[in-house]
Amino acid sequence: MTQPVRNLQTALDSFSEPWSPRRLVSVNDYDVKVFKAAGEFTWHSHPDTDELFLVVSGRLVIQQRNADGGDVELGPGDVYVVPRGVEHCPRADGEVSALLIEPQGTVNTGDTPSARTATLRELDD
Amino acid sequence: MTQPVRNLQTALDSFSEPWSPRRLVSVNDYDVKVFKAAGEFTWHSHPDTDELFLVVSGRLVIQQRNADGGDVELGPGDVYVVPRGVEHCPRADGEVSALLIEPQGTVNTGDTPSARTATLRELDD
Repeated sequence: MTQPVRNLQTALDSFSEPWSPRRLVSVNDYDVKVFKAAGEFTWHSHPDTDELFLVVSGRLVIQQRNADGGDVELGPGDVYVVPRGVEHCPRADGEVSALLIEPQGTVNTGDTPSARTATLRELDD
Repeated sequence: MTQPVRNLQTALDSFSEPWSPRRLVSVNDYDVKVFKAAGEFTWHSHPDTDELFLVVSGRLVIQQRNADGGDVELGPGDVYVVPRGVEHCPRADGEVSALLIEPQGTVNTGDTPSARTATLRELDD
């Protein structure tokens, strides 16, 4: 299925709500999503999948409870993969724009549903 | 498995050879790769997988033979997914830096092996 060309910055400029990912494109059964972050998210893990973060602007700290690396601080252009099963809690210092890659159906709050659990939205929703 | 933080620009600055992808990180059984492009690549398709291009710098034309959309021109921040099975041939107008996402084992020349077929390299190879 042919998908349209998407510009990363245009997509990020099209919404402002934090912690509410939008689908940019799909690759096979993976989704590439964009999201904005402000403040702290919620502790959770994804038992069955890795989760890639690519920060476009701002500074995002990925707090981790059981990884070798502890907290990881990401600036523009930084890419980090949270390994499957690792408890983590992203925290934005200021406003952050970022990209996520994970299998379709991956829920933002992983194994810890809460008021923060968001349905994946399309860019033009 | 914990992987290091990778900076996209630092990774791209670490090599110059065109059409020779380097693995940036892996997400489950997918690889996120960076590559440089100069001039025209070679016509090929990937019968079993979509292929995501994200242009970081420069202008990349994805020529396509059997897609609805025909040629697609990508500038910085533009994301496009070549659907599985679509014959395509990337062409760089000037020097291009870009990111690729596809399943591990996907070969750069797809179903059309040639002198252009490259083994995936690690960043520090």
